[in-house]
Amino acid sequence: MLTRRFVLRALALASALVVSTRAAGQGVPTRQGSARPAQFPAATYKPEFGTMWTFDAPPLDYWRRTYGFAPDQRWLDHVRLSSVRLPNCSASFVSSRGLVMTNHHCGRDCTAAVSPVDSNYIQTGFAARTLADEKKCEGLYVDQLQSIQNVTDRVRSAITGKTPAEQAAQRSAVISQIQTECNQQTQLSCQVVTLYQGGIYSLYRYRRFSDLRLVMAPEGDIAFFGGDPDNFTYPRYDLDLTLLRVYENGQPYSPTDYLKWSPAGAVEDELVFVVGNPGSTGRLNTISQMEFLRDIGYPATLAAYKRALAIYAQLAVTDTSAARRYQNDVFGVANSQKAVTGYRAGLLDTLSMAKKRAFEQDLRARIAADPKLQAQYGGTWDAIAAAQRELATFSPQLRYRSFGGGSTLLQLGAGLVRVATESSKPDSARLPQYRGPGLDNIKAQLLRPVPIDTAFERLAVAAQLRAAESQLPANDPFLRAALVGRTPEAVAADLVHNSRVGDLAFRQSLIQGGVPAVSASTDPLIVWARAIDPLNRAVTARANALNAVIAANSEKIGQAIFAAYGTALPPDATFTLRISDGVVKSFPSNGTIAPYKTTFYGLYERSAAFDDKDPFKLPRRWVERKASLDLTTPFNFVSTNDIIGGNSGSPVINRNAEVVGLVFDSNIEGVSNRFIFSTDVGRTVSVHSRGIVEALRKMYDGSRIADELQGR
Amino acid sequence: MLTRRFVLRALALASALVVSTRAAGQGVPTRQGSARPAQFPAATYKPEFGTMWTFDAPPLDYWRRTYGFAPDQRWLDHVRLSSVRLPNCSASFVSSRGLVMTNHHCGRDCTAAVSPVDSNYIQTGFAARTLADEKKCEGLYVDQLQSIQNVTDRVRSAITGKTPAEQAAQRSAVISQIQTECNQQTQLSCQVVTLYQGGIYSLYRYRRFSDLRLVMAPEGDIAFFGGDPDNFTYPRYDLDLTLLRVYENGQPYSPTDYLKWSPAGAVEDELVFVVGNPGSTGRLNTISQMEFLRDIGYPATLAAYKRALAIYAQLAVTDTSAARRYQNDVFGVANSQKAVTGYRAGLLDTLSMAKKRAFEQDLRARIAADPKLQAQYGGTWDAIAAAQRELATFSPQLRYRSFGGGSTLLQLGAGLVRVATESSKPDSARLPQYRGPGLDNIKAQLLRPVPIDTAFERLAVAAQLRAAESQLPANDPFLRAALVGRTPEAVAADLVHNSRVGDLAFRQSLIQGGVPAVSASTDPLIVWARAIDPLNRAVTARANALNAVIAANSEKIGQAIFAAYGTALPPDATFTLRISDGVVKSFPSNGTIAPYKTTFYGLYERSAAFDDKDPFKLPRRWVERKASLDLTTPFNFVSTNDIIGGNSGSPVINRNAEVVGLVFDSNIEGVSNRFIFSTDVGRTVSVHSRGIVEALRKMYDGSRIADELQGR
Repeated sequence: MLTRRFVLRALALASALVVSTRAAGQGVPTRQGSARPAQFPAATYKPEFGTMWTFDAPPLDYWRRTYGFAPDQRWLDHVRLSSVRLPNCSASFVSSRGLVMTNHHCGRDCTAAVSPVDSNYIQTGFAARTLADEKKCEGLYVDQLQSIQNVTDRVRSAITGKTPAEQAAQRSAVISQIQTECNQQTQLSCQVVTLYQGGIYSLYRYRRFSDLRLVMAPEGDIAFFGGDPDNFTYPRYDLDLTLLRVYENGQPYSPTDYLKWSPAGAVEDELVFVVGNPGSTGRLNTISQMEFLRDIGYPATLAAYKRALAIYAQLAVTDTSAARRYQNDVFGVANSQKAVTGYRAGLLDTLSMAKKRAFEQDLRARIAADPKLQAQYGGTWDAIAAAQRELATFSPQLRYRSFGGGSTLLQLGAGLVRVATESSKPDSARLPQYRGPGLDNIKAQLLRPVPIDTAFERLAVAAQLRAAESQLPANDPFLRAALVGRTPEAVAADLVHNSRVGDLAFRQSLIQGGVPAVSASTDPLIVWARAIDPLNRAVTARANALNAVIAANSEKIGQAIFAAYGTALPPDATFTLRISDGVVKSFPSNGTIAPYKTTFYGLYERSAAFDDKDPFKLPRRWVERKASLDLTTPFNFVSTNDIIGGNSGSPVINRNAEVVGLVFDSNIEGVSNRFIFSTDVGRTVSVHSRGIVEALRKMYDGSRIADELQGR
Repeated sequence: MLTRRFVLRALALASALVVSTRAAGQGVPTRQGSARPAQFPAATYKPEFGTMWTFDAPPLDYWRRTYGFAPDQRWLDHVRLSSVRLPNCSASFVSSRGLVMTNHHCGRDCTAAVSPVDSNYIQTGFAARTLADEKKCEGLYVDQLQSIQNVTDRVRSAITGKTPAEQAAQRSAVISQIQTECNQQTQLSCQVVTLYQGGIYSLYRYRRFSDLRLVMAPEGDIAFFGGDPDNFTYPRYDLDLTLLRVYENGQPYSPTDYLKWSPAGAVEDELVFVVGNPGSTGRLNTISQMEFLRDIGYPATLAAYKRALAIYAQLAVTDTSAARRYQNDVFGVANSQKAVTGYRAGLLDTLSMAKKRAFEQDLRARIAADPKLQAQYGGTWDAIAAAQRELATFSPQLRYRSFGGGSTLLQLGAGLVRVATESSKPDSARLPQYRGPGLDNIKAQLLRPVPIDTAFERLAVAAQLRAAESQLPANDPFLRAALVGRTPEAVAADLVHNSRVGDLAFRQSLIQGGVPAVSASTDPLIVWARAIDPLNRAVTARANALNAVIAANSEKIGQAIFAAYGTALPPDATFTLRISDGVVKSFPSNGTIAPYKTTFYGLYERSAAFDDKDPFKLPRRWVERKASLDLTTPFNFVSTNDIIGGNSGSPVINRNAEVVGLVFDSNIEGVSNRFIFSTDVGRTVSVHSRGIVEALRKMYDGSRIADELQGR
């Protein structure tokens, strides 16, 4: 599955801008490519930028040329209106009575919440026998995209200020105004979306449906069969499915548009589209940004994961039960390691980077050829590169002064010291995240009871300090303040065993006592955090200034790329609706061929090969009812569509706009597509539509639901 | 499976030295570690040298320490006598009535040969219903190792010459003499085996059994299920099995020793031994030899494979039937590419190479500490390194002057020119391979009818010349002679279309006409080969001289290593009987875990996932009788034993010397073990003993045979 980490990122992006109301929708006029300066040739498709197309700029010529297929506007409108967005996932209407299909992990909170007191549907699975059995998901909603309107001119004309700060405030104000007006006029949920890093501003209008009910969710063990080890891999055998139903006025809602069910499901080599909301990509990043991540950012992250895994391994040596206790943490870190290794792999691929470099050089040469463009955009790449270079010079300092390493105690200690200082200032003088309601939120977090795992804490603090010791110069102020001449192990033992920061009452007393209490404290961790805090503030401020330069120049580059190529290149992902073309296709893997599909046989193979041990344990009904299954039924499959976190739950459809599958993951090779897209070995992994129906009918007594999906 | 290429190499190694007679055997005394100079510490096991132990030096202490298990001499003798060697594979006695178990690909020639006129057992499979139905394999034999005797002193004392040539002749003579004496005295098949590149000479005495009959062989489609794509990979689903029976005097032979069948078969994490005849490893190679292969030898080989694959791809573009016609060739090249990529991967692994380098530095330092050892061995590493460096300076020249690129025409043209010249000389002045019966053999090869694929030839010749053009300096004499100012494509078209070398009668006339006919010929390919031949001779002679230096010094290094470490390090593989310890173990693969075993479920999964297309097509009986199989039965499994080509057909046994499996392949990660052994991810792949019995009983009406294996 596309992990929670990804899902949350998509959530943050979306909730930042959505303002909700509701009303009737409008059509989506196809956006026109903007006028292009003469030195840019007619726009051509560049595969390395991927295929996350917006619905107002479908690449009809490219599709016609590549597949001999170009849908008409009615097809596009139908598909758009059949798609809906969950707060952190994608989904679609799949029946005339408002069934909504998404992933198991997207509906997980509701599935857990509606479970009866004595049971848990995550463990047992759930399938409503009748409409009356469908369970209301409190607080859940889906948004349906009604229309898209280009508001670039209005946004630009409102930005008249000279400084980046003035400009940012004006941009924010005009976007707010556009959204509020839209909400009032249309009763829809309106969001201004920044595409091409500011190349276009588009107003997206959504209709929100707020009565969703749980219809069916399988057991977690079959939804996430193979668990963290199999995450990001293929071949795969997961029924990562939740079926919800939209209700209106207490009755099933009948959508104007929904996706019909394909009789055959996904077939090898066929053209398929994924329709959903990819969260975030970095394909418009400059070479210098990518090189920074490749050479500094990601290696540091990977080193931190390695340290964390070493800690868990060390804990398991002295404590035989630790292996089991930390299993989820270990797999969680291992999974992040997989993902980041994947991102970095794309940047390490010399062929991909050469393509990217050629693109950038060509773009810069063309811009340099026009004095006006050169004046406007010419300096941006060098400005970003210079900022990245400067960031690189103190990135170890930045890393080790921010209380990382996974230690809960260090985080609490640092928070207590800082909250005292910030509380003592007027609101406008505080650090941004401490302003307004931020301060109370942060205090509340510090006052939640949290268990302290002292064995882990000691190792985590020591490992972090040891890493700092090996990477910072001996006379570094942080090292001097953090160690005060002691060994990392001695400091860790002191902080973990002699501090009372783990004690809720102690934290309460410090927050109430404010600066005087913190300043007077002799608690070793508070003393320690007091010494570190000013160093952290200084280095963070320096990094923030450089990141602001990068952001301002990135925006210009987005504008330059859009000015040059128009909509021939899709914009970076923004957790808004996209349509991606691809083909159902096997790929070279593990020295041989990974097949385009798997079947139920493979599910039973993988379980048997691991002697039915967790996470390859089958739910009981899958053992007991095995004989009733047609084991040759396709279960999962792969295609070359372009997806990323946020796409979880997206439907996969064929030319007839029929459902052939349900996206739930990328293979690890596809993870590197974050920066440079390639279909050589990266694949989207989906549940096959035939596997869904077979499971509903044979395993979940779900013929009522299967009949509804199949329109019977 | 361990491909034919590997198998053949093992064959060549073995047949070069075996002299056959037969008689009663003798025991194997455990060899004593030789006296070790003071600067070498008590011998310790070094994992990177692997675990291919000889039966006269079992590492009992290391086994006891690692597994808490050390077999007694009776166990070792029993296992040795239960093992037999086929001409190119390994095998074992597995019943009281002389059943011999080996791989399908090891018995393939017999299986094909005994097929009835109207059928082919490779396609249909075969299982003899009764003893009378068992089919005699003409010419096939197995050798059983009776005893091992250290003859190092006798060999050494016979070598008194000063020059390498004198020494080589004396060595060859004394080995011949020892073998002949042994044959006459014991009536056994005797072979002097060179271990540690000359550190030890051991006399191996074999009893030969020459009446073998085919008892059972499954269909090729299930024996080699997954074909070339799945070769060298795991998870795997192959029944790579042949059962033969040894007869004596027309009756089933009752061996004194045979391996009993384990009731449980291989179980996760258990200690298992592989007993068989690994063909060839390069673990005693020096760093400079490995670096040469890594940086020059293997990259050139891989580039040639890439060219070959490009040619097949190009042929498929213009000729739609070509894809099918060249399918076997393509997979063959792809497989070699897999293997060589694997070998090279081991050398590219910086950690492995660092270990190897540390070992070499340590050894050299210890030798340097003793003036006598230093005088004897001190210069060897530098001598090899210097020779490798010089070889590197003209390796492109060597490569392109030897008529490679897969062109049959170039080979024939070169052969005709050279055979004429060599025929005209007295026997003793000829190149070695043209002396004695060699000349007639080469002539016979040139006079075999061979089809010429002109489309392929043109592309192959052009590709080879284009590669030469890109890698040789413009003024290179070969390039000038080969192109004479034309393009590679023009030369290829001329040679392929205007030469009559493809015509058998023309070749006959040139061979009969000798030097005058060849010199007078105006055939463009003969003219071309006449110009190239002297260049080829010169560069080959230069390479041969350097390779002789490497060989002589390698022998010294083998002696030095043996002198230092004794039998604590196993010798390189020599296609003689070894016992390797290991553990049944899963491994990290493809971003997740490859299970320690597969089951029959996985066989049906892989077939269904590829829609039953070749090479994932199941034999008919496996479809028709599927319902009778217990699909959870283990089918294949992996273990950390140390194997290589020649080990095909080796039994895998547990502590009780019971059969738990049958070796048939290595995963691709294990291929890199050729130079530096590691169990991180390299694995031996075997058929599980339970899968064998289940298949015999349910698929092949083979309860007679299964009962015999299980001792019922």
